[in-house]
Amino acid sequence: MHDEAPHRELIRRLHSDLPEGRVVTDPGVMAGYAHDEAEWAPYGNPAAVVRPRTAEEVQRVVRACLDHGAAVVTRGAGTGLSGGANAVDGSVVLSTEAMTAIKQIDPLERLAIVEPGVVNDDLRAACAEQDLWYPPDPASAPWSTIGGNVATNAGGLCCVKYGVTRDYVLGLQFVTGTGELVRVGRRTAKGVAGYDLTGLLVGSEGTLGVITEVTVRLRPSRAPEHTVAGFFSSVVDAGHAVAAVAAAGVVPSALELIDRYCLEAVDAWKHMGLSTEADVVLLGRTDAPGKAGEEEAETIRRCFEGAGATWAVRSTDPQEADALFEARRLAYPALERLGPVLTEDICVPKSAVPEMLGRIHAIAERHETLIANIAHAGDGNLHPLLITPPGDEPARARAQAAFHDIIAEALALGGTVTGEHGVGLLKREGLRAEVGPEVMALNHAVKDALDPRGLFNPGKVLGR
Amino acid sequence: MHDEAPHRELIRRLHSDLPEGRVVTDPGVMAGYAHDEAEWAPYGNPAAVVRPRTAEEVQRVVRACLDHGAAVVTRGAGTGLSGGANAVDGSVVLSTEAMTAIKQIDPLERLAIVEPGVVNDDLRAACAEQDLWYPPDPASAPWSTIGGNVATNAGGLCCVKYGVTRDYVLGLQFVTGTGELVRVGRRTAKGVAGYDLTGLLVGSEGTLGVITEVTVRLRPSRAPEHTVAGFFSSVVDAGHAVAAVAAAGVVPSALELIDRYCLEAVDAWKHMGLSTEADVVLLGRTDAPGKAGEEEAETIRRCFEGAGATWAVRSTDPQEADALFEARRLAYPALERLGPVLTEDICVPKSAVPEMLGRIHAIAERHETLIANIAHAGDGNLHPLLITPPGDEPARARAQAAFHDIIAEALALGGTVTGEHGVGLLKREGLRAEVGPEVMALNHAVKDALDPRGLFNPGKVLGR
Repeated sequence: MHDEAPHRELIRRLHSDLPEGRVVTDPGVMAGYAHDEAEWAPYGNPAAVVRPRTAEEVQRVVRACLDHGAAVVTRGAGTGLSGGANAVDGSVVLSTEAMTAIKQIDPLERLAIVEPGVVNDDLRAACAEQDLWYPPDPASAPWSTIGGNVATNAGGLCCVKYGVTRDYVLGLQFVTGTGELVRVGRRTAKGVAGYDLTGLLVGSEGTLGVITEVTVRLRPSRAPEHTVAGFFSSVVDAGHAVAAVAAAGVVPSALELIDRYCLEAVDAWKHMGLSTEADVVLLGRTDAPGKAGEEEAETIRRCFEGAGATWAVRSTDPQEADALFEARRLAYPALERLGPVLTEDICVPKSAVPEMLGRIHAIAERHETLIANIAHAGDGNLHPLLITPPGDEPARARAQAAFHDIIAEALALGGTVTGEHGVGLLKREGLRAEVGPEVMALNHAVKDALDPRGLFNPGKVLGR
Repeated sequence: MHDEAPHRELIRRLHSDLPEGRVVTDPGVMAGYAHDEAEWAPYGNPAAVVRPRTAEEVQRVVRACLDHGAAVVTRGAGTGLSGGANAVDGSVVLSTEAMTAIKQIDPLERLAIVEPGVVNDDLRAACAEQDLWYPPDPASAPWSTIGGNVATNAGGLCCVKYGVTRDYVLGLQFVTGTGELVRVGRRTAKGVAGYDLTGLLVGSEGTLGVITEVTVRLRPSRAPEHTVAGFFSSVVDAGHAVAAVAAAGVVPSALELIDRYCLEAVDAWKHMGLSTEADVVLLGRTDAPGKAGEEEAETIRRCFEGAGATWAVRSTDPQEADALFEARRLAYPALERLGPVLTEDICVPKSAVPEMLGRIHAIAERHETLIANIAHAGDGNLHPLLITPPGDEPARARAQAAFHDIIAEALALGGTVTGEHGVGLLKREGLRAEVGPEVMALNHAVKDALDPRGLFNPGKVLGR
């Protein structure tokens, strides 16, 4: 039974300051807002969930929390994989799900202005109607929100050529740690007026403010993609193929790796017939226009072949090509069907991909843990997926040891502990190991400067 | 005569902590380090100029300044146009000119690691030898340094397609406001571990730390460019041509505007025979590969023609095309021959370019000031150049009034007070007008967090 008593004054204030229907305190409903998709990350019981509809309502929530000393945990669709949106005890979970307006799409300036709760795919679809393209495409694009994408600086498949969310955020409106509603950034193509507060908010995982509006840069729609599939009998061969593509001077528009475990899981679920043919599949794409695209696709194919692919072919059937990428997108939910999945997210130098895949294999053996691999291989961003039988506590302990070892090996190879999923709760120790005490002190100084009361998402990222 | 007395202890400390030849106190030599290229921005007398050769030497300078309460003004090549590198009285001017090592160019990871004093064109040339390309290309590229480019988030001609310096900085080493030597960022393609301190340092104009090493992202060398020249009889027609190119879905690799005053000044100097034929020239380029490039060039040409160009042609002669771009690059020094030039740097929405050019014309008439225009027209970044006869004080006052009016009109049209030159000293008032008191407070909070002693470049950007 949820006990409202300690939060009675806060809840009364929220009800009084917000229109009817914005405040949720029903425990059953709140349970659905208490955590994101990060397995095993701890979460607490919020005092309330609020679903504001305007920036001014968000500001009222923040001010109420400031007055009552309650933490604000902001949440988009809850598809995060690091526990960044997990509730802390007594916090107000602020869901942006009702702020779904696409306020403007401007084809001449090539920008869009959206509320934070707009789903990534919805924005992409709306842009496509005007021959425009919003590139960032996390695998969660059908569900995750632009606000959440901005808060985590989400990556995706096309980063290898087009960069990450940060590269597309021109400006933000947000509520500050002192309850002000401000705008930072711009809607011009360039601008250097003052510090890059926009970029600082991007990837800050809800610890510096609540984003209420996002201005994103768009690109013109691009040429149709050519797809190349390569089947390999070892992850190391596939890793060499990735290095060969980079060395050939090609910038693919996607270069994804899927290993046998993922293929089998997808097959078991969707019966796509993928897993009988390869231990590892590489999927490459190029969107270079016209003949250049054909040439690049052929270069990618030859790189696959030269690195020892057992089969390497340019797909001439767009449906088949899309199916291959759909399989990649389905890998995570398919594996979840087998048991709790602990998702890793490391990024290593491209040249270190074969070595890192080898070390992951050794870690799996050492800790007797099933580790499947999907990877944005083209930029060295690997997602080892650690799978344990439901309810098997010793297996769980072994998986967690493997998780930590993977982080350590990524750092040893000059990599980072998180390529695109964020620090949240799961990578706090890794962050400290990666950046060292002096840079942690700089991070804390920035947090204290912008959130002097420690209001936003306490305990996440920096650990306090 | 320079009086060392008040700074005797500081200078003794610098001499004692640094190798022979690093510390300069000769007034004649120091005079050449006291200001950048911003006409009319005030500057003071430094206590000393230091030219460290290593990151550790930079750290020793910063620690000496911390201990003696002296300000640190960091300086690259001194090509800035906002006074950001101008000395303040009693400061130590830290010149990075001797830190010119290109430490690494890695073709597989597509990155370079350089010291801050490396000249932009030198890095570009070294990359080209390995079929790699460092895109940011400010007009000052033959002289300006990567450190200065990073500190000001320099733009350039190819921003319209390839973005600005910030988009290429992966990681930094810098000395903090407490005298620590730290590394931020990464050398992997992606990474979200902690706040984006790298991005925060970019464009901070020497107010948050002293950059001692820069890791930049590179691209593969690109296809040869096609050049399109268009002659127009009014800036407003040229502005419409810019809008037409954007509306056609083309992303040119450069789209530059040069008006008659600039053409005449270049002609008077270099006898290129440009100015007799047009009031305004637009130069468009595309580097799309193969046939796509030819098609885009033709699209640009048709856009020029449709907007009323008196002459629009695709250049088939690379030498001629390069000469046109050389004329654009020479515009600023050519105008400087005529008298002191006050360089504006505003950025407006692309659709507002014709209106803004019209308002600049009206401002020129109202204040009886000669205003020439060069512009990165494709991204709305205009550089009105205000020219006064040498020694004419009333003309100078009128030009300054015009300068302020241009800033006000840019803001009125939804633009920013500085597109790429930075705030420095000249745009401090404009910055306050643009962002408002709440965002100024956030800027101050960041400054205080990272430079708690107010050591770095006091008085610049934020005004204290």
